[in-house]
Amino acid sequence: MFKKRDNIKEVEEGKYLEPKFDENGLIPVITSDFKTGVILMHGYMNNEALKKTIETKEAHYWSRSRQKVWHKGQISGFTQKVKEIRIDDDQDSIWITVDIGDGASCHVGYRSCFYRSIPLGKIKSIEKLEINYKEDKKIFDPKKVYKDEPNPTKL
Amino acid sequence: MFKKRDNIKEVEEGKYLEPKFDENGLIPVITSDFKTGVILMHGYMNNEALKKTIETKEAHYWSRSRQKVWHKGQISGFTQKVKEIRIDDDQDSIWITVDIGDGASCHVGYRSCFYRSIPLGKIKSIEKLEINYKEDKKIFDPKKVYKDEPNPTKL
Repeated sequence: MFKKRDNIKEVEEGKYLEPKFDENGLIPVITSDFKTGVILMHGYMNNEALKKTIETKEAHYWSRSRQKVWHKGQISGFTQKVKEIRIDDDQDSIWITVDIGDGASCHVGYRSCFYRSIPLGKIKSIEKLEINYKEDKKIFDPKKVYKDEPNPTKL
Repeated sequence: MFKKRDNIKEVEEGKYLEPKFDENGLIPVITSDFKTGVILMHGYMNNEALKKTIETKEAHYWSRSRQKVWHKGQISGFTQKVKEIRIDDDQDSIWITVDIGDGASCHVGYRSCFYRSIPLGKIKSIEKLEINYKEDKKIFDPKKVYKDEPNPTKL
């Protein structure tokens, strides 16, 4: 598979892809919107999902809830066309920029998974810290799109 | 500490902050540049780092290499002024938007940690997949800034 990591200088400033997968075989992935720069989601890839994403130019992730490679949009139709893939200094995280057209990336129905904001400043009550909605309109109705699919959110 | 997660509907569409920390007590954090939208880094926070970031409006992370809360910029001077903090649908990842002025966020010396791009399309040799530099100018000299500090990159 990908080149073996045996030299820190090469990992940081070399010319080869030498990704680091964690103890579960996963690397974290940031997905941003090509049109707006907004972060759409945070996910994970395994070796195979990364390879598929590079080769097909459509985002593939590792679904931790379903424990399998997941071609994003397979059910919803909201595929992500990959415009660019970047890797960070120590090659243990990935940033992909994608085109989702007028679609959505969040299973709750919003365009971005990051639809809520945490207010800054002195916390009055940490147990009742209220967050604010930054997106107020769902792009789709998850009940119609996902039907009987189990919800990936875990407590 | 933060509100207990006991209901998926509340986690996804409720009004309270109920972050999920993983088995190591960490939550992944995406940090983007307020001015350009570029992703600067991918890090982690523990409970305390998140609380400090909210209250001080300066980014604090959990340093996995040093195993302690890390006030970003403590050594280099490149602090990150937090403009906004968002949390995702299942509240297991965070996105912060920061102002770093003309500074840098990468310990190798670049403005962003994501200074290299992975070419898309059919992979000829996976063991020798060459990556391309997207930033070619370091903002600072890490040897001068970090002196004898150990390199956080691990193989």
